[in-house]
Amino acid sequence: MPTRIFDKRHAAPGTAPGTLRPSAQRVERVTIHVIRYSPEDFDEREVASLEECAALAPPAAGGVTWIDVVGLHDIELVARLGDTFGLHPLALEDVLNTGQRPKLDEYDDHLFCVLRDFHGGETLISEQIALFLKPGLVLTLQELPGDSFEPVRERLRRGRGRIRAAGADYLAYALIDALVDQFFPLLEQQGERIEALEEELIAAPTPETLERIYRLRRELLLLRRAAWPEREVIGALRREETALVGREVKLFLGDAYDHAVQVLDILETYRELAGSMLDVYLSSLSHRMNEVMKVLTVIATIFIPLTFVAGVYGMNFDRMPELHWRWGYPASLLLMTAIALGLIVFFRRRGWF
Amino acid sequence: MPTRIFDKRHAAPGTAPGTLRPSAQRVERVTIHVIRYSPEDFDEREVASLEECAALAPPAAGGVTWIDVVGLHDIELVARLGDTFGLHPLALEDVLNTGQRPKLDEYDDHLFCVLRDFHGGETLISEQIALFLKPGLVLTLQELPGDSFEPVRERLRRGRGRIRAAGADYLAYALIDALVDQFFPLLEQQGERIEALEEELIAAPTPETLERIYRLRRELLLLRRAAWPEREVIGALRREETALVGREVKLFLGDAYDHAVQVLDILETYRELAGSMLDVYLSSLSHRMNEVMKVLTVIATIFIPLTFVAGVYGMNFDRMPELHWRWGYPASLLLMTAIALGLIVFFRRRGWF
Amino acid sequence: MPTRIFDKRHAAPGTAPGTLRPSAQRVERVTIHVIRYSPEDFDEREVASLEECAALAPPAAGGVTWIDVVGLHDIELVARLGDTFGLHPLALEDVLNTGQRPKLDEYDDHLFCVLRDFHGGETLISEQIALFLKPGLVLTLQELPGDSFEPVRERLRRGRGRIRAAGADYLAYALIDALVDQFFPLLEQQGERIEALEEELIAAPTPETLERIYRLRRELLLLRRAAWPEREVIGALRREETALVGREVKLFLGDAYDHAVQVLDILETYRELAGSMLDVYLSSLSHRMNEVMKVLTVIATIFIPLTFVAGVYGMNFDRMPELHWRWGYPASLLLMTAIALGLIVFFRRRGWF
Amino acid sequence: MPTRIFDKRHAAPGTAPGTLRPSAQRVERVTIHVIRYSPEDFDEREVASLEECAALAPPAAGGVTWIDVVGLHDIELVARLGDTFGLHPLALEDVLNTGQRPKLDEYDDHLFCVLRDFHGGETLISEQIALFLKPGLVLTLQELPGDSFEPVRERLRRGRGRIRAAGADYLAYALIDALVDQFFPLLEQQGERIEALEEELIAAPTPETLERIYRLRRELLLLRRAAWPEREVIGALRREETALVGREVKLFLGDAYDHAVQVLDILETYRELAGSMLDVYLSSLSHRMNEVMKVLTVIATIFIPLTFVAGVYGMNFDRMPELHWRWGYPASLLLMTAIALGLIVFFRRRGWF
Amino acid sequence: MPTRIFDKRHAAPGTAPGTLRPSAQRVERVTIHVIRYSPEDFDEREVASLEECAALAPPAAGGVTWIDVVGLHDIELVARLGDTFGLHPLALEDVLNTGQRPKLDEYDDHLFCVLRDFHGGETLISEQIALFLKPGLVLTLQELPGDSFEPVRERLRRGRGRIRAAGADYLAYALIDALVDQFFPLLEQQGERIEALEEELIAAPTPETLERIYRLRRELLLLRRAAWPEREVIGALRREETALVGREVKLFLGDAYDHAVQVLDILETYRELAGSMLDVYLSSLSHRMNEVMKVLTVIATIFIPLTFVAGVYGMNFDRMPELHWRWGYPASLLLMTAIALGLIVFFRRRGWF
Repeated sequence: MPTRIFDKRHAAPGTAPGTLRPSAQRVERVTIHVIRYSPEDFDEREVASLEECAALAPPAAGGVTWIDVVGLHDIELVARLGDTFGLHPLALEDVLNTGQRPKLDEYDDHLFCVLRDFHGGETLISEQIALFLKPGLVLTLQELPGDSFEPVRERLRRGRGRIRAAGADYLAYALIDALVDQFFPLLEQQGERIEALEEELIAAPTPETLERIYRLRRELLLLRRAAWPEREVIGALRREETALVGREVKLFLGDAYDHAVQVLDILETYRELAGSMLDVYLSSLSHRMNEVMKVLTVIATIFIPLTFVAGVYGMNFDRMPELHWRWGYPASLLLMTAIALGLIVFFRRRGWF
Repeated sequence: MPTRIFDKRHAAPGTAPGTLRPSAQRVERVTIHVIRYSPEDFDEREVASLEECAALAPPAAGGVTWIDVVGLHDIELVARLGDTFGLHPLALEDVLNTGQRPKLDEYDDHLFCVLRDFHGGETLISEQIALFLKPGLVLTLQELPGDSFEPVRERLRRGRGRIRAAGADYLAYALIDALVDQFFPLLEQQGERIEALEEELIAAPTPETLERIYRLRRELLLLRRAAWPEREVIGALRREETALVGREVKLFLGDAYDHAVQVLDILETYRELAGSMLDVYLSSLSHRMNEVMKVLTVIATIFIPLTFVAGVYGMNFDRMPELHWRWGYPASLLLMTAIALGLIVFFRRRGWF
Repeated sequence: MPTRIFDKRHAAPGTAPGTLRPSAQRVERVTIHVIRYSPEDFDEREVASLEECAALAPPAAGGVTWIDVVGLHDIELVARLGDTFGLHPLALEDVLNTGQRPKLDEYDDHLFCVLRDFHGGETLISEQIALFLKPGLVLTLQELPGDSFEPVRERLRRGRGRIRAAGADYLAYALIDALVDQFFPLLEQQGERIEALEEELIAAPTPETLERIYRLRRELLLLRRAAWPEREVIGALRREETALVGREVKLFLGDAYDHAVQVLDILETYRELAGSMLDVYLSSLSHRMNEVMKVLTVIATIFIPLTFVAGVYGMNFDRMPELHWRWGYPASLLLMTAIALGLIVFFRRRGWF
Repeated sequence: MPTRIFDKRHAAPGTAPGTLRPSAQRVERVTIHVIRYSPEDFDEREVASLEECAALAPPAAGGVTWIDVVGLHDIELVARLGDTFGLHPLALEDVLNTGQRPKLDEYDDHLFCVLRDFHGGETLISEQIALFLKPGLVLTLQELPGDSFEPVRERLRRGRGRIRAAGADYLAYALIDALVDQFFPLLEQQGERIEALEEELIAAPTPETLERIYRLRRELLLLRRAAWPEREVIGALRREETALVGREVKLFLGDAYDHAVQVLDILETYRELAGSMLDVYLSSLSHRMNEVMKVLTVIATIFIPLTFVAGVYGMNFDRMPELHWRWGYPASLLLMTAIALGLIVFFRRRGWF
Repeated sequence: MPTRIFDKRHAAPGTAPGTLRPSAQRVERVTIHVIRYSPEDFDEREVASLEECAALAPPAAGGVTWIDVVGLHDIELVARLGDTFGLHPLALEDVLNTGQRPKLDEYDDHLFCVLRDFHGGETLISEQIALFLKPGLVLTLQELPGDSFEPVRERLRRGRGRIRAAGADYLAYALIDALVDQFFPLLEQQGERIEALEEELIAAPTPETLERIYRLRRELLLLRRAAWPEREVIGALRREETALVGREVKLFLGDAYDHAVQVLDILETYRELAGSMLDVYLSSLSHRMNEVMKVLTVIATIFIPLTFVAGVYGMNFDRMPELHWRWGYPASLLLMTAIALGLIVFFRRRGWF
């Protein structure tokens, strides 16, 4: 089954804005993963409920809390999250409406991004990531278990580099950067498919080649639909005049922005190649048809006149003087050879074989 | 009958601006539906005439009146509406000229939007919605009964959420939002058509497939023609520096704007897919032709030389020594078998079967 | 003969700017039509010469004079017009150079627009309209008799509505608006052609269909070439900071601008459809070829082996034991039937008929 | 030989900027043509060397000198020109590097434009024109004799109109205008080619048609490559805040700008038509193939079964009762006629002939 | 093997920014080439280690040092370079990440550009060049030995022209200019390929032609992917308000910018031509198929009816009166000739041969 382009998970038209409806894929159990850290401390745990989460001691001054919720079908939980952390109802609606386009909304005391995470494999599966940034707090909500954030968690655990010393804005950057960088292996995969298709196209195109080209274009469209607005989100974050994102982090966002531009650049190149491939496929089909037709034409046009000659001397007229000639039979064979040779010369001259 | 792209309902060129001419589809009876509400009160009624409408007690302070007129062929009524509520003649002309592109005009004390409502089904029918916003008053004029506003009415009746407490600007937002959100089920429908077409294309394309692709492209064009300017209308409303639209409502308009962008984004993706499909269709036809030609060529080029050999030995020459050989007949059969095998080997090598 | 895209009526390269050369189509007689009006008065006459025109009593204070010259080959007349009304030489050159693109030039005390009028019919004929706007004076110069201005004249004659009370700027707007609105019936015509072509395409495409699609694209190109810069002209007039165009008239120009945008929008949609049609035509040809080939292939591949069998038993070898078998003939017929059935089953399985 | 797109006359990569290298086509003799004029005087002469040129008496106050150098392979001369008139080394490098794109550079006391002149004929030849504008001096450098400037010289000689009274900036404008206006006859020529191709396409497309369409697209590309940046050059000259170009001349440049826009507009239209033509060509080939195939199919499928029947009754079995029937032969002929009629009816119904 | 579009040399997603990882192609030995010069002095040497490099006497006041590192797999070295010269970690990461898009980053006291160098030959190889500009210092880092900088070194050695007298900014300009100018010979090469392909296309297109067109489009894509952002880099350098690039050098950068624009302009033209070529190829295949089919159709439809006639008179019915007619045989031959002539006339009229 090919990847779906349109998530059938929109609200019924006309419902009030901010109405929370479940639309995400159902996971077995909603999990809440909490990481709290400061340059010195690191604490990671899975909590059973929001209450437990709220009951955790706040991180040390300057520390950061990252709450990662996996599973979005528990509307109650999301609503209470909104209450607990003062999140805007419109943003909460977008969290649940999982077919969103990546975007950035700025609210009074928090930023809200919608981003997308991809799960590779045979079929590309795209999952919506909602990210809230408040002072000292990053809140991410995802549909499905498994994400691109594991390396960031690893960096936090090891505590090396800048990440434990920096604030929540740096963590948000690191998460966004991980989502952008995940495009590279996906692109590499698509690049390999392109190279395989190119060889297939030249060597022996089949209808499966056509289907594969179509699928490739479809997936490139899907990737571009995510990559394009994510670039805008990062660009907007860089320009945003907000105290939530520090000057230092904006420099790093510039780096992530360059990566997003590079992703789009490669995607465009791939799209152009995929477009050319379809032309090549069609041309190559036409060429093969030409070859087939040439063989048919050469054989048919050589033998059809010969068969006619044989037919003539197979007629049963009483008076056909040739039939009684001494050399009639060899002469007829000679005639046929001459006709055949004449046609062969004709085709040679046309360069048909 | 496919959906029409061009409503033949323009004014004769050269008529004075502001001249009111009927162009809308005729409905049996013009209906005027009035809803008046404030946080506490709610009154909904259908009135017989404009006079009756004007005679209604004004809503409580801070209340909102929504007058919804269905049926536009009664020019008199529209003209009197203009007089009663002080609407600009150019706007009234646009109300009646039902082939308008969505747009926003700002007049001294009222805003005027043209929007479009769709009626799904076999054929997409598009209807023009005119919306006036004045302080405490929303006036909508539509061509046909049945609209996308029913959920908004329902929210007003139930009185839950923000809607009864908010002003006329919020009601206008809610109506526009309902028009934008109606695209989602339409898109879902188109998405299903695309998936059906994709399967059909790969499995067994017929000329009906081609027609369906063409129709799909046509309807996507129609949807885009409405969605694109509606996005602009909402964008303009957000930026508009007018006292008619409050700061709070602009935030909600931002949400509607995001939805409109998402609609356009999906439409563009669909359009690209529909374009690719045509290429795939053509390629797939070419491939099938190739298959047909191969069968013809294989059969014809194998039997044509054999028939020739049979023809030769069917000739009636007096002296054909082979005919009198003891093993002449089996030898001729052997010869033919050899020719056939040779050609089969030749085609095998070319990978034709 | 199809519509020409390029009017061969440019000046020789290198001639001095402002040199007046005749390039317009020749009409039998140049006519000068003068309308003078004020809210109370209305006077319409055709004058024989420019002198007579200049000798007319000026209209009452606040009145407007509209001089409409039809026929541009009398260079003398145009030059004297320029002198009499103080028109800029570059503008006069553009008046005569009838292959101009619509544009707006602002001179010290007058505005100058180039616009285009269309004459429908079998072939679209496009005519250049030059319009000068001075305080109290509108001067139009056209190549050919017959124009889109008649409804405006009628409104002036009847004296209803705003037009007699308003100034020269309003008259200029009314004329421009008439030129924009004339696109609508032309678009309607093209829309009908498109619908006819769509039916033809699906039912029975012929080479004439192809020619018609090509002509359609050509005429849409022509219309767009006029509509696009006319939209710019109107947009520029609206923004122009000139005392020549009043604030009120700018509001009306906004309305004309919306119409021009709508025209372009429909043109773009038509262009996309015309593009799709060519693809559909090609696909439909391919499909028909497939059908033809299938019939040939089915008939040929069934009968060619049968004919071969008949040929074998038509050979004249002395010793062909089958010929003397009692059931030889029916057996041979059975063999042939079996072969035919086998092939029919084969084709059925492939879904060829 | 088709027109070249890329002049192989670039400098070796890495050479110092301002290095003078000959790259232009070699002409037999470099000529220096000097025209000096003021409203009252006019002096035109060809000088042998730069020294002679420098020795000429300066024109009267307010007079203008136009030095026109034809032939660019004499690097010495160009270098000395630079010294004599204080031209910037980067500009001199561009003068010699004749594959430049049209552009405008502003230096401290002079303006430098690169423009292109075309020599029509079978193959379009494009030549680089370098133009320097200093107070009272216009300096043009061209590769080849023969240019589009002759009408300007003629206007200078006759001394009519504005040209002798105006300054060097007006002369520069007149030269640029002549280069822009030369596009019109070229476009007219291309327009005629397009019309001829259109007729050819519909009537009887051959492979030469295809080649001609390709050449047409190529030349349109070439013309656009010159026209597009020339429009920018003129636009930049108009906006340039420099004392070198007077306010009056900017008005005339506005006129030249409009012409350049018109040129581009026609070029775009031509390009679209040329693109459509290729589609039409392909469709028309497909259609002809269909026709050919139909004839083959009709003839072959009618006669192949008949031949089979004849083959059956040509078999030599001992016992074929039909052969001895009294009406066997006429019955067989009837059978064959019936088969033929049946097939003809079948093809008629399919609308094949 | 065709050129790769995507360098598989990205970092694992989620790694910390500024992490140095080797990704470049491995060269045998990292070389450090140091050139120090001032107007009077010139010193060029290859150093073994960074320490040796640091130990070199600084150039005279106003002198410039150019350190050129070839080989990027020694991460240690790059890290120490960063420490020694105070380069930003994000820039160092980009140096090692050799699949970067050309870009310009401004840091506090240094500018950092990523550019690309091409190695021609059968397959286009693209190499990343990192360039740092600090006051008095230019630092370049490349993956592979062999570059486009040799002419610049030569100009430094000879000490002619401006280069020795100018500062580090001029050296940086000269290097960038060399990278831009190297496109010209590459474009010339592509231009020759295009011309060869054009001739091949018209004369005798083969499937190799198709492959070559596809490869051409691919390489043009690759070149454009480098040229487009390099133009942006140069444009940004010109506008950059930094003390690192002097006003004089910005003038030269303007010249390099013009070259980059010209490169892009030629690339676009080539791309359009390559696109047209594919259409021409497809059309030309179709045309050839038409020719083949015509020959088959003419021969087959002439002989098939004749063979049928011969078949009829080869039947063995007892009573076939024609067989016993005196002139039966010649009459049958006449009949066949008449049929053949009729068909020939038919085909002539259709213009088939």
